[in-house]
Amino acid sequence: MLTNDQLSQWDRDTFFHPSTHLAQHARGESANRIIKTASGVYIEDRDGNRMLDAFAGLYCVNVGYGRPEIAEAIADQAKELAYYHSYVGHGTEASITLAKMVVDRAPANMSKVYFGLGGSDANETNIKLVWYINNVLGRPQKKKIISRWRGYHGSGLITGSLTGLGLFHAKFDLPLAGILHTEAPYYYRRPDLNMSEADFTAHCASELEAMIEREGADTIAAFIAEPLLGTGGIVPPPAGYWAAIQPILKKHDIILIADEVVTGFGRLGTMFGSAHYDIEPDIITIAKGLTSAYAPLSGSIISDKLWKVLEEGTDTYGPFGHGWTYSAHPIGAAAGVANLKLIDSLGLVDNAGITGAYLNTTMEAALADHPHVGEVRGEGMLCSVELVRDRDTRTFFDAGDKFAARVVAAMLKRGVIARAMPQGDIIGFAPPLCLTKSEADTIVSATVDALNEVSA
Amino acid sequence: MLTNDQLSQWDRDTFFHPSTHLAQHARGESANRIIKTASGVYIEDRDGNRMLDAFAGLYCVNVGYGRPEIAEAIADQAKELAYYHSYVGHGTEASITLAKMVVDRAPANMSKVYFGLGGSDANETNIKLVWYINNVLGRPQKKKIISRWRGYHGSGLITGSLTGLGLFHAKFDLPLAGILHTEAPYYYRRPDLNMSEADFTAHCASELEAMIEREGADTIAAFIAEPLLGTGGIVPPPAGYWAAIQPILKKHDIILIADEVVTGFGRLGTMFGSAHYDIEPDIITIAKGLTSAYAPLSGSIISDKLWKVLEEGTDTYGPFGHGWTYSAHPIGAAAGVANLKLIDSLGLVDNAGITGAYLNTTMEAALADHPHVGEVRGEGMLCSVELVRDRDTRTFFDAGDKFAARVVAAMLKRGVIARAMPQGDIIGFAPPLCLTKSEADTIVSATVDALNEVSA
Ligand SMILES: Cc1ncc(COP(=O)(O)O)c(C=O)c1O
Ligand SMILES: Cc1ncc(COP(=O)(O)O)c(C=O)c1O
Repeated sequence: MLTNDQLSQWDRDTFFHPSTHLAQHARGESANRIIKTASGVYIEDRDGNRMLDAFAGLYCVNVGYGRPEIAEAIADQAKELAYYHSYVGHGTEASITLAKMVVDRAPANMSKVYFGLGGSDANETNIKLVWYINNVLGRPQKKKIISRWRGYHGSGLITGSLTGLGLFHAKFDLPLAGILHTEAPYYYRRPDLNMSEADFTAHCASELEAMIEREGADTIAAFIAEPLLGTGGIVPPPAGYWAAIQPILKKHDIILIADEVVTGFGRLGTMFGSAHYDIEPDIITIAKGLTSAYAPLSGSIISDKLWKVLEEGTDTYGPFGHGWTYSAHPIGAAAGVANLKLIDSLGLVDNAGITGAYLNTTMEAALADHPHVGEVRGEGMLCSVELVRDRDTRTFFDAGDKFAARVVAAMLKRGVIARAMPQGDIIGFAPPLCLTKSEADTIVSATVDALNEVSA
Repeated sequence: MLTNDQLSQWDRDTFFHPSTHLAQHARGESANRIIKTASGVYIEDRDGNRMLDAFAGLYCVNVGYGRPEIAEAIADQAKELAYYHSYVGHGTEASITLAKMVVDRAPANMSKVYFGLGGSDANETNIKLVWYINNVLGRPQKKKIISRWRGYHGSGLITGSLTGLGLFHAKFDLPLAGILHTEAPYYYRRPDLNMSEADFTAHCASELEAMIEREGADTIAAFIAEPLLGTGGIVPPPAGYWAAIQPILKKHDIILIADEVVTGFGRLGTMFGSAHYDIEPDIITIAKGLTSAYAPLSGSIISDKLWKVLEEGTDTYGPFGHGWTYSAHPIGAAAGVANLKLIDSLGLVDNAGITGAYLNTTMEAALADHPHVGEVRGEGMLCSVELVRDRDTRTFFDAGDKFAARVVAAMLKRGVIARAMPQGDIIGFAPPLCLTKSEADTIVSATVDALNEVSA
C-alpha cells in the first residue's frame, strides 16, 4: 500500500465521498479511513487497526468478509468473461443460473428477475414497471406511489423521493410530485403515547386508507415499503401491521412493492422478509445480500401476474425500452451464485435468526435499566438502541447534541463499528449473518461501555 | 457449462432481460444467446460460435476482452477486500488512486470525482448536484434541464427523460416535467435540405437560445449533451456546433454537463471528447471506458468552481445527503486503475484515432456508391452507416421494414456484431479501441456483403 500521506492527500484532493461533510473532509478536519483488508466480521485499516464491523458495511456483507469461495468465483468469471451485455436476450451461465436461484428462493408467486446494480436503480426500475403496467392495463391515471415516512428506498431523484427522511430531501427539491408519504409504522414514536400497539396499527391503516380516499384510488399505482423500517431507525412494525395494510391495498388494486434490499437473503432469519411477516408482494426489490456486496448487483423480482401484463405490453408495443449497460453484469452474477450457495451451505439464514435473537436479548438485558435507553428493538440479525434524554417522559435529545454519534464514536475507540442512524438518536446494528455469540457479546459490551462513557 | 437446454429453459422461465421483446423471449420465439468467453475483439457463445464484436458490448469494452491485467487486479481486490463502503470519508487504496488518475486525465479545471455504478446513476447524481448547487447559490427557481432530441443519458425516470428517444419515453410517461429537449445536432436529418452545415449550426444555436428565452434563463439550470450523439445515431456535430452553443450557455449562466459515458477514455482518439471538440464542461459524466466494463463503475467529475459551492453547501447545511451503497466499489475501482494503466501502456487512445480513421475511410470508400447508403459518418473509433430507401431524395425506410435490423442480422451470420441503433435505420460500429486494420477490413466486408444480401 502507498504511504499514508500520499493516499491521504489524493483522497482529500480528488475523491468526492458520498454522505460526507465535503468541506471538512477536503480541509482535513475529519478522518479519512482507508480500509485495507477484512475477514469474517472484522475489517482492518491501513494502519493495522482491526474493527468488528457490527453494521456489515452498510448492512450488506451478509456472509461476512474475505470468503474465498466468492473471491474465486469472481476471479474465474473475470478471467473467462468479465463482461457481456444482457440486452435482447443475451446472457451468461452465471446470470441465468442466478436468475433461477433467486426465483427458486422467492415467494411462490414470483416469476422473473430483472438485474440492476444497486438498490436505488432497482426501485427506479420498479416504478417504471408499475407505470408501464398501468398503461398497458388502460389506467393511465393510476400512477402515484405511496411510501412511508422514514422509509429508505434510495438516493436518486425519484428513489430519494420515495425515501421518507429529511436529510435526503432537503436542498435537493425532493420529494418530486406524485410521491406521497404515509405514517411511519414506528410505535415508539407514535403520535399519542396513550395508544396501544393495536391502536397504533389501526391508526397506520386508517391513515393509509384516508390518503387513498383523499387522492382517489384510481390515481394510486403502488405502495412501496420495507418489511421493517431500516435506515429510518431499524424498527419492526407494530403487531398486526401487515395484516392490516394488505387488505387495503388489495381492495384498491394497488401494487405492493416489498423493498427487501436489507431483509432479502436471510437478515430476518428467513430467506425473505416477506415470509417473515406474511407479506404477499407483487414486486420485490433485492440488492445487498444478493451478492453480500462482493460485487454490485440488485434485482427486481416480478410476480407471475405482473409478468403476464409485461408480456402483453411487448406483444402490443414491441421491445421493452429499459436497460442499464451493466444489467446482469457477469461479475455480479458470479458473485451472487457463489454467495447464495454459501448462505445455504453455512446455514446463515438460521444463524441470523438464532444469533440475532441472542444479540437482541443480550443487548436488551444489558441496557434495560439505562436511563438514556428508550427502547432496544430488533428482529433477526438487526438490532437498534434508541437513546433519549429521559426515558420516562420519552424526551428526545436535541439533534445538535449528536448523542448517538458520540456513542458510536466511543464504540469505534473500542474497536466496534455501529451506525448512528440518520434521523434521531438511534444506534443501529446489522452484523454479518455469520456472527457468533461471543462476537455478539463483544458488540454488547462495547455498546454499554461507550454509552456509559458518553452519559457520564 | 451446463447443458444448453437446461440453461435455455431457466433463461426463458426466470430471466427478465433489458431491452427485449419479453413475450417472444419467454415463448422461445427469439434466440437466447449465451456468451461463454471472449478475447480481444472476439466473443464466443456456448455453442462455440466466435464473433467479431464491432460494438464492444455496448460500446464499453474499450481495451478489448480477456485482458489478464484487469482480471488479476479484480481477483486480487476480491481476495484482499471485496467491499467496504465509501460513506463519511471511507476509501480504499484502489478508489483513491482511481480518483487521482481520473482527475489527472480530465480537463484542467476539474477537481473531484464522485463514483457511481452506471452511466444512468451518474447522470442522476449530476442532476441532484445541479439542483443542490442552485439552492446553495440562492436561485431556487433555476432548475430546468435542457437536453437534446436523440441524446442518450440513461434509462431511469429522470435520466430516461433526459434521453431524447421515443422508445425510452413511450408507455413510461416520460419525459417528466422540467426536462426540455432542443434540436438534435444531426445535419443529415436537418429540417430543410437546403440548409448548409453552417446554417444548420446557426439553427441549432438559435433554437437553444429561443428555448432559453421562452422559458426564462432564470429557470434553466443545466444543459446536458454528449460531445457527439451516440445512441441517437452516432452523429458527429455539425461544424462549429460547440463553438456556437457554449457562449449561449455562459451568457445565461447555465451549467454544462458533458455526458462522456461513450466518449470518455479514448473513443474519439483523445482521452476525453471534451478535448476533441473544445468543450469546457462544468461536470463530466463517465462510465463504460472507465473500467472497460470489466466491473460496473461510473463517475461524475466536478469542476473546481462547482466543488467550491458544494463545500459551501456542506459548511452551511451539513453532510451531503447522497450516496449509493456501492459508490466507489473496490472491485470497480481496482478494475478502473488497471484499465486506465492499460489504455496508456497499449497506446489505445492513439490507436482509436488512427485505426478508427482507417475504419471510417474504408467503410466510406466501400459504401460510397451504394444506393441505400445515405451517409457514412464517424469520429475516432465510432462509425455509422445511415440507410435510406433512396439516397438522392433522402427518403427513409418505413420503421416496419426493419431494414437496418435485417442488415445487422445478416452481418451476424457472417460473424460480425454491429448494432442497429434504436431510432432510424442506422448501423452503428464502436469496436474495442485495440482494433487492428485487418479486423477493420473484416467489419467493412461483412457490412458490404450483408447490405448487398438484404438489398438484393
Ligand atoms: C431498503 C433499501 N432500499 C434501497 C436502498 C438503496 O440501495 P443502494 O444504496 O444500493 O442504491 C437501500 C440502501 O440502504 C435500502 O436500505
Ligand atoms: C452517453 C450515455 N450516457 C449514459 C448512458 C447510460 O449508462 P448506463 O447504461 O450504464 O446506465 C449511456 C449508455 O449507453 C450513454 O451512452
